Amino acid sequence: MNDMTQSEDTILLREDDTGVAILTLNAPKSINALSEKMLAELSSAFDEIAEDRSVKVVILRTAGNHFCAGHNLKEMTEHRQDADGGFQYFQDLFATCSSMMMRIVRLPQPVVAEVKGIATAAGCQLVAACDLAVASEDARFATSGVNIGLFCSTPMVALSRNVPRKQAMEMLLLGEFLPAAQVAEFGLINRCVPRDALEDTTMEIARVIADKPAAAIKIGKRAFYEQVEMTLEDAYAFAGRVMAENMMARDAEAGIGAFTRKEPKPDWTGE
Amino acid sequence: MNDMTQSEDTILLREDDTGVAILTLNAPKSINALSEKMLAELSSAFDEIAEDRSVKVVILRTAGNHFCAGHNLKEMTEHRQDADGGFQYFQDLFATCSSMMMRIVRLPQPVVAEVKGIATAAGCQLVAACDLAVASEDARFATSGVNIGLFCSTPMVALSRNVPRKQAMEMLLLGEFLPAAQVAEFGLINRCVPRDALEDTTMEIARVIADKPAAAIKIGKRAFYEQVEMTLEDAYAFAGRVMAENMMARDAEAGIGAFTRKEPKPDWTGE
Amino acid sequence: MNDMTQSEDTILLREDDTGVAILTLNAPKSINALSEKMLAELSSAFDEIAEDRSVKVVILRTAGNHFCAGHNLKEMTEHRQDADGGFQYFQDLFATCSSMMMRIVRLPQPVVAEVKGIATAAGCQLVAACDLAVASEDARFATSGVNIGLFCSTPMVALSRNVPRKQAMEMLLLGEFLPAAQVAEFGLINRCVPRDALEDTTMEIARVIADKPAAAIKIGKRAFYEQVEMTLEDAYAFAGRVMAENMMARDAEAGIGAFTRKEPKPDWTGE
Repeated sequence: MNDMTQSEDTILLREDDTGVAILTLNAPKSINALSEKMLAELSSAFDEIAEDRSVKVVILRTAGNHFCAGHNLKEMTEHRQDADGGFQYFQDLFATCSSMMMRIVRLPQPVVAEVKGIATAAGCQLVAACDLAVASEDARFATSGVNIGLFCSTPMVALSRNVPRKQAMEMLLLGEFLPAAQVAEFGLINRCVPRDALEDTTMEIARVIADKPAAAIKIGKRAFYEQVEMTLEDAYAFAGRVMAENMMARDAEAGIGAFTRKEPKPDWTGE
Repeated sequence: MNDMTQSEDTILLREDDTGVAILTLNAPKSINALSEKMLAELSSAFDEIAEDRSVKVVILRTAGNHFCAGHNLKEMTEHRQDADGGFQYFQDLFATCSSMMMRIVRLPQPVVAEVKGIATAAGCQLVAACDLAVASEDARFATSGVNIGLFCSTPMVALSRNVPRKQAMEMLLLGEFLPAAQVAEFGLINRCVPRDALEDTTMEIARVIADKPAAAIKIGKRAFYEQVEMTLEDAYAFAGRVMAENMMARDAEAGIGAFTRKEPKPDWTGE
Repeated sequence: MNDMTQSEDTILLREDDTGVAILTLNAPKSINALSEKMLAELSSAFDEIAEDRSVKVVILRTAGNHFCAGHNLKEMTEHRQDADGGFQYFQDLFATCSSMMMRIVRLPQPVVAEVKGIATAAGCQLVAACDLAVASEDARFATSGVNIGLFCSTPMVALSRNVPRKQAMEMLLLGEFLPAAQVAEFGLINRCVPRDALEDTTMEIARVIADKPAAAIKIGKRAFYEQVEMTLEDAYAFAGRVMAENMMARDAEAGIGAFTRKEPKPDWTGE
């Protein structure tokens, strides 16, 4: 796919490739800003994919040289002319953005961020909100809102659940751009690879996931985010029920059966 | 101890050595699978040790070349013949397994996992559930249930409380075997040592713990897992009471007294 | 400032330098122990700074060669003569100490620990309680109470919220002194620098923070510690409201305006 030949009228592209849906943020002039339109398109795309059994995994890619610069500050600034100075608009905008981020968390299919160039503010949050993230060595990450008077409060919700406390605080208070290798040490991303290996590495990971039984992935991803907010004892009780139900799935029966009989992996039915 | 000379009829061995109880999973043919029998033996051993004041610390060792491959899939598969397809059996089994894991958490004495070869699925969970873990460089860790259609939902309860979110998700979604050095970076284990140093390193750590006053260890371990689930303010209120009570213990009085008088450490009474 | 020329009668020094308040624990003979007097002085200093709009950031420095050895064990031991063996005194002391630690968390301004020599027990907790920490390569960290029969239960509240579970447990159970480079890997500190770069590095970080708009820092720091204890969905709802309110701040309007117009950063009003 050559994103650059696309009109920017289509700010979110989707290309499906045997179980892998590639969503491409296609607004490189605004560094793929999360404008109202972009948030709506992303939310809508995730809603569609949630119902699309042909999709096993999603790659979040971007057109141009960067990942995402966060909110569209020009669009936001225009609403300072509103009667209330934009307050209601801002509340709605952040709620819409959080709702889009929650769609990623709740999507049955895993989402892998493919990060190059800068990922800042809500763009850094987008990386944190994905289930997995691959970045090129040149990628740089920041929660830089503090530099212009707007602390990255919603980004920190995702960031502080991915990165240890002092390192999250450092990113939020200093607002500096950190290289991929450093945030990999913090735990924010899974892989840091040369720029020319970025798409292949991300696709390899996506293919590994696409080859798993989709029902197990769906059950497991949902359970992950539910149990992580419970006490240890509640989490075990919950996960035990989840796993017993998972045992009754057709693919679990076929997969475990083949494994114990030392037969090759079955074709997954998705059930 | 030469485990290999033992009959496999005794699937859990216990050897005590001046305060250190060594539990050895002795079912190498099944890669020390957590069968019904193994879970029962482990639970029973922990219950005994909980009441045994001569034991200061537990090492969880395994016979053969591997740590533990998780549940016994053959045993589980047989219950697909049950009237309900095994559903009730599976529920009970996972509850029993979680209950065994919780016994480790609630045991007054710390438990140190000694890991070689593979530690997968509930075997990887077992490492995560222990208080500390030492692994040999050849050890490999996986939550690989996804590969056969059974997502590692109960293992992820322990895993996601030991490892950052994206790294836990990577292990769960990709199901790949990761070397000890890598999971050490994730925080899943405390030490990664050459294979021929594994037992000595684990024993050294156990000896350090065994030489501490047992009452303080018991108070502290219990408080650790309780406070970690509280809000910061509640945790401080709770821990402050715990520490005031700890001050009244005989060994605290003797230990602090000797320290402030620059005298050698007293003999601990365990009270 | 040459702390060593100060009388130890002044056990807490404060020096302000264009937005940076440097608090210096000045009781090197007791390794800056958190005596009743020291706790009272620190609490009082934080209360004053909380109301002092001229302070943008706090550095927590120490006189002598070490950071802090935790509670004053001699002072505590004297209270074993109380009618109740000191129990009520100990409870009050730990509550007072926790209350001081909470003041750091609740302080509108970020606090940066500057750590050299040893930071042990409540001294290690003090590092964990600060928002950021810089340490010299010679610094050593321990939660060593277990060695004298008093498990570091209140320190572990802060420690276990900064460091992964197995690594926290290792520090608490073994009570060993770990070098700065190692606890940096655990996430307990942000920087590990040569001894002669310690003060400059800490001051550089403080200056970066002091140059940010104070209102955004205050809003963000408070929101950080509130949202981190919420569920993901509640945290997003909360942070969205925080960010909408932040948008209405004068400095956010000026900062975002200048950024979108590609003008230089405005002078912050602090509002």
